[in-house]
Amino acid sequence: MSGFAFELGSTDQAARTGVLRLKRGSVLTPAFMPVGTAATVKAMQPESVAKTGADIVLANTYHLMLRPGAERIAKLGGLHKFMNWPWPILTDSGGYQVMSLSSLRDITEEGVRFRSHIDGSEHFLSPERAMEIQCLLGSDIQMVLDECPAYPAAEAEIETSLALSMRWAKRSKAAFARSGGACFGIVQGGVYPRLRQRSVHELMAIGFEGYAVGGLAVGEGQSAMFDVLEATVPHLPRDHPRYLMGVGKPDDIVGAVLRGIDMFDCVLPTRSGRNGQAFSWEGALNLRNARHADDSSPIDPSCTCPACRSYSRAYLHHVVKAGEIIASMLLTWHNLQFFQDLMRALREAASHGMTAEFAAQFLKRYRGGGTDPEG
Amino acid sequence: MSGFAFELGSTDQAARTGVLRLKRGSVLTPAFMPVGTAATVKAMQPESVAKTGADIVLANTYHLMLRPGAERIAKLGGLHKFMNWPWPILTDSGGYQVMSLSSLRDITEEGVRFRSHIDGSEHFLSPERAMEIQCLLGSDIQMVLDECPAYPAAEAEIETSLALSMRWAKRSKAAFARSGGACFGIVQGGVYPRLRQRSVHELMAIGFEGYAVGGLAVGEGQSAMFDVLEATVPHLPRDHPRYLMGVGKPDDIVGAVLRGIDMFDCVLPTRSGRNGQAFSWEGALNLRNARHADDSSPIDPSCTCPACRSYSRAYLHHVVKAGEIIASMLLTWHNLQFFQDLMRALREAASHGMTAEFAAQFLKRYRGGGTDPEG
Repeated sequence: MSGFAFELGSTDQAARTGVLRLKRGSVLTPAFMPVGTAATVKAMQPESVAKTGADIVLANTYHLMLRPGAERIAKLGGLHKFMNWPWPILTDSGGYQVMSLSSLRDITEEGVRFRSHIDGSEHFLSPERAMEIQCLLGSDIQMVLDECPAYPAAEAEIETSLALSMRWAKRSKAAFARSGGACFGIVQGGVYPRLRQRSVHELMAIGFEGYAVGGLAVGEGQSAMFDVLEATVPHLPRDHPRYLMGVGKPDDIVGAVLRGIDMFDCVLPTRSGRNGQAFSWEGALNLRNARHADDSSPIDPSCTCPACRSYSRAYLHHVVKAGEIIASMLLTWHNLQFFQDLMRALREAASHGMTAEFAAQFLKRYRGGGTDPEG
Repeated sequence: MSGFAFELGSTDQAARTGVLRLKRGSVLTPAFMPVGTAATVKAMQPESVAKTGADIVLANTYHLMLRPGAERIAKLGGLHKFMNWPWPILTDSGGYQVMSLSSLRDITEEGVRFRSHIDGSEHFLSPERAMEIQCLLGSDIQMVLDECPAYPAAEAEIETSLALSMRWAKRSKAAFARSGGACFGIVQGGVYPRLRQRSVHELMAIGFEGYAVGGLAVGEGQSAMFDVLEATVPHLPRDHPRYLMGVGKPDDIVGAVLRGIDMFDCVLPTRSGRNGQAFSWEGALNLRNARHADDSSPIDPSCTCPACRSYSRAYLHHVVKAGEIIASMLLTWHNLQFFQDLMRALREAASHGMTAEFAAQFLKRYRGGGTDPEG
């Protein structure tokens, strides 16, 4: 496929390193993709996102189709130019947000009709339209439209939903073929290994540049999620990237890398940053906590982000309490830096055959640290 | 005075250029001081504030004494270190905010007792305590405590208030002498030339490093403000800096420089930036206006700020409408850049004897531009 290649690097049991080669740049895997929902990684300038080491960001089709509109972005020269991020962008299909944010959803074989959560206006998303929008945006990796069932759901319900998602996957791929680039399928099937494996095989029969695992991190818990990965990932083709959608917490990521996942996205570092929470190797800190008020030390003296280089916990506590925008700016930057540093450490561990050892050390330190109870 | 010198440069009628030499850096005048109320210039990293060309920022004693507390900041190494701004800082005395923000004010000869607008706690500010707090913060230029009467007020009322402010100025200076640095007096007297001149003479008898003009930009209008400047500034000593507090709009600043003012501070560029407004040489733009939705041009192609270098008006419109933090970040940066560019242009005009010509051209362009009606 032009504009896309995946080169596998080291493997270490199920874990592996690799490089995604895309038209606009290369992505080292395992990779964490910061979320830039509405054409901005919240509270960050894009050059700062790049400075943390992020090679790729995610943008949301649902949000952008509603505001400012895909055709408008296309006329303005595409999403990369619009949001001043010249490097790779992965767009989701909009399916997940339609299910979680919009009202009055009406799902048929053809697609899904829904009302905007912004102004109540009516919209229609089909597999073909989802791919068309992602093409208008100019994204480097496009996701098929799938149905995202709520959790928990009975096996029969998941099976019906999965069947629709697989028909939509086929239509998405057919629509995508006309636009070029890279297209990822999405494995569904809830917590049912049989359905997950059926989904894998149906998607492989269609053929995609990459394979995402969807429908997780929806409340099933880490152990059930890891079980699904163990029942799914070994069936995926070795030479294609694997993307675990919407995950996750640092320990989720470490566990998923151990189980063979290459790509992640999550709002956690950015959203937590806006809520006064900072990740560290010793666990999460809540800067709102009064114990930081007189603390002249940084969040993490080994971190290279501006929050840690130039500010005390006392200052961060102050600006969080005062509701100042710089609190969101600094803590978001720190959290994105932490997630990228974690991915770098995982890549290095995997390339030295030490992923399991790294994971054990990481979890011991991360879960044993002096974190804030509410952090 | 150690740690303070003012060198007058060119003069051009009443306008002039100069350099304030302070322990932590030099300030080219006429100067605009961005406002960093609660130890942050809102939505900006301090290094970005410096990049716009700002040599000095203002911080608010009232806000900092209430949260996080002056003694706490002192223990953490002072305000410069706390907020990561190693260059000069001017602090106000807190008087203006006590009058405008707090409740249950009780003004006596000794000082003012008031309740915090944050948590209702009771506090007391005297001339001595105001200077002590500014000394704990470690500010480079400290302001005397004055009483700030509401506008409009009758001449007798202003006269009574002025007398108190002058007694407080004397006590402030006496308290300041123990701490070193630079101390500015504040000329009061409302819109009454006789009282303004009396205030000037009483302050000069005490002797200050600089002289501020206070009690303006409180609703009297530009023409009344300029009248007060014309009745006041000629009586101030030539060889000391003159600071017009809380001003102002770009055309206010141009008019005040023409009348001999050297220093300004105002929340306008930062507050407007958070409200979707952008200043330009053609007047103010409201990026919320739908006419910008498809506009691929920047706010100002000649501006060097990140908002203008890397983003279209269409993008800025989108992020303003979506309430994204990057809208505040980019528009604040642009507005601070515009204000610093304006000061640079004024300094250059004054140094070439062309201030009046520059002012006429500026006002014609600024007031005649294609601005947004609500901008």
